[in-house]
Amino acid sequence: MVPLPVPPYLVVVFVSRRTGDDPAGYAAAAEAMDRLAREQPGFLGIDSVHDPETREGITVSYWVDDASARAWKSVAEHAEAQRTGRQRWYDSYEIHVGTVERAYAHPPRH
Amino acid sequence: MVPLPVPPYLVVVFVSRRTGDDPAGYAAAAEAMDRLAREQPGFLGIDSVHDPETREGITVSYWVDDASARAWKSVAEHAEAQRTGRQRWYDSYEIHVGTVERAYAHPPRH
Repeated sequence: MVPLPVPPYLVVVFVSRRTGDDPAGYAAAAEAMDRLAREQPGFLGIDSVHDPETREGITVSYWVDDASARAWKSVAEHAEAQRTGRQRWYDSYEIHVGTVERAYAHPPRH
Repeated sequence: MVPLPVPPYLVVVFVSRRTGDDPAGYAAAAEAMDRLAREQPGFLGIDSVHDPETREGITVSYWVDDASARAWKSVAEHAEAQRTGRQRWYDSYEIHVGTVERAYAHPPRH
């Protein structure tokens, strides 16, 4: 869980269902993408959960502004396109990009 | 994965870490909350992933407008407050509420 940023900030929600093919290649790529995200300008944090049984995953990344969220989408797509595994790994995915106006934490963060 | 709504729409991102206490009570409550969400006005869809090993979860719900997203937060809090388990189930959680401006699906949805 990330230190709660002060709104407004950008959120990129990546919801995916994996095929189950090539688990080792997928795991290496997922780790590389996580490292790459953390190096980008405007990066605020990332939350990622995968259920090994259903092969569904949700990754939520947080960005200071729309420019950094757009840049990350483009960097991520470029990195993914360079990999041969993408077609094998994902059955389907959806991306939702938006502006967070309100945020809450329990227990409250200071 | 939900049929991709047409932006703008609201997104409520719920990121949680569970204590691991009372798994049966938690599972029943999670199912009840999912059912409750689907009955609310303005509901567009819900994606939810939990990793049984790390006990982390991300639930993303989609709403037609800010009023329905706010109403859902209030209904959910009221329902949760009526349950005695909440303190036992969640170690911590965060909620991010925002407006989705762009959305993508692969394969593309029509």
